[in-house]
Amino acid sequence: MSTTLCTSIAELKAAAAALLAQRTAGKGGTLGLVPTMGALHSGHAELATTAAAENDVVIATVFVNPLQFGDATDLARYPRTTQADLELLDQAAVDFMFAPPVEEMYPHGEPLIRVTAGTMGELYEGASRPGHFDGALTVVAKLLHLGRPETGLAAPAADGRSAYRAYFGQKDAQQLALVRKMVADLNFPVDIVGVPTVRDADGLALSSRNRFLSTQERESALVLSRALRLLQRRADAREPLDIASVQDLVNSAPGVELDYLEVVDPVTLAVRAENCQDTPFTGQALALIAAKVGPVRLIDNMPLG
Amino acid sequence: MSTTLCTSIAELKAAAAALLAQRTAGKGGTLGLVPTMGALHSGHAELATTAAAENDVVIATVFVNPLQFGDATDLARYPRTTQADLELLDQAAVDFMFAPPVEEMYPHGEPLIRVTAGTMGELYEGASRPGHFDGALTVVAKLLHLGRPETGLAAPAADGRSAYRAYFGQKDAQQLALVRKMVADLNFPVDIVGVPTVRDADGLALSSRNRFLSTQERESALVLSRALRLLQRRADAREPLDIASVQDLVNSAPGVELDYLEVVDPVTLAVRAENCQDTPFTGQALALIAAKVGPVRLIDNMPLG
Repeated sequence: MSTTLCTSIAELKAAAAALLAQRTAGKGGTLGLVPTMGALHSGHAELATTAAAENDVVIATVFVNPLQFGDATDLARYPRTTQADLELLDQAAVDFMFAPPVEEMYPHGEPLIRVTAGTMGELYEGASRPGHFDGALTVVAKLLHLGRPETGLAAPAADGRSAYRAYFGQKDAQQLALVRKMVADLNFPVDIVGVPTVRDADGLALSSRNRFLSTQERESALVLSRALRLLQRRADAREPLDIASVQDLVNSAPGVELDYLEVVDPVTLAVRAENCQDTPFTGQALALIAAKVGPVRLIDNMPLG
Repeated sequence: MSTTLCTSIAELKAAAAALLAQRTAGKGGTLGLVPTMGALHSGHAELATTAAAENDVVIATVFVNPLQFGDATDLARYPRTTQADLELLDQAAVDFMFAPPVEEMYPHGEPLIRVTAGTMGELYEGASRPGHFDGALTVVAKLLHLGRPETGLAAPAADGRSAYRAYFGQKDAQQLALVRKMVADLNFPVDIVGVPTVRDADGLALSSRNRFLSTQERESALVLSRALRLLQRRADAREPLDIASVQDLVNSAPGVELDYLEVVDPVTLAVRAENCQDTPFTGQALALIAAKVGPVRLIDNMPLG
């Protein structure tokens, strides 16, 4: 095992700076951070191996953040698989797994000062989970600061890109867009890297929730990625998207209840009012979908154009 | 003139890192940041000279932040004295004056993602200025990131104190307490230094608003610092504070209308319910006062015990 488990902030900061100095002979290098809530699967492994390929030192964080859960039952039920997570990160050549107890992250109880996601946090996933993105951005703000070593980073590249990078999955499109916006709006000195969604061979996007699907439900769940691919094909062909027909297709799958299927601006996530129904598709967009499949709520997204 | 005026973020970051490397022969040094809204007076000079005495490189920022003003008239009326500010900072041996235009700080208009001060931002000054501290913390969060060089800082001291320090006046006690709380809650890698309030010989705390006082009002305004000193003497003597009598004293001064006079916890700013009236004072506290003197609202504070 070459991945070091750290549970204290001070220990992580010191060890990461020391390893960075050692690996780069004190010349300054790059560090990649992979924030997660654990229960790691191949999608996370993709984040970790990407970060490891691109950086001198890599930290993955595993923290089930109480702030972003609406109720205590959900929080308690969230899977904790520390030993398996550590093994997966070791396979991905991650140097540090930072898995702090709640008291290390919130030593005085829940933080008084928080980051708010604004109106962009009230759409889509935020609509059914009030406060979720405020909690998620608050903990990401903390982790982005905790993972950044005080010394040993190289100067930014000529194009302004930082030697400190944080890796997020494109699967959580709204979270990724909000993190990018936070970093821009508050001038955090970090580059945000979005890593493409990993899918099973049949197209289902990997998720820690897939384990709760029955065989029948798993078959039904394929309609999400099929719907997105259909929109992609129509967009590529510059045909009308006819989004209403795709919404009907999703709802017709057994046991599937569509929450939303929207075509949005990839940066602001504002719904594209034009080119979604009857006129030929132009430009670039993101298609977002969320649906309940049996008892399990799933999300997915794909770029269009 | 040895203070360099910078108006762009990229220019500031590059110039500060280069100067830090030059002054410390690449070994790593300390940097002090002094965030201000300009209209600088001797109180700001004290912040700047303290920062200059304690650091290898010093940046002062001058930015009248639209987010923290309740109405556009106040914002437009706020004094802008760029040339005089530059001269004062030069006298104080500050290396850089960062005075960005609004578009440099908010290139996409007002930021979507913000910092919120929570309940602590609704007390005292926040009670009469809704949203003020959310706006102030949001811009301070940005400035704390913008002023931190990407390379060239020394490692933290053995006690964990950062080589990057930001200086705030104790005069704005609530702002200082909120900035400290933000840095702790969101793990910003910076040390916050509170600098004691500068007073005129008669005890009046320096403020850019004092210029609006008539001779008569200025005389009346002395009751604020006198009231605080009276509480200090009672606290030192471990006597009952009898805060009600001091509130009456303030209100009896001609043209003075007390907003609040409270004895609070120095960290949380929660009102101390005990030891404020009839029982002997114990422990440590902060006395906060705000009053209108003629048309001018003034604040002041002093530590007790």
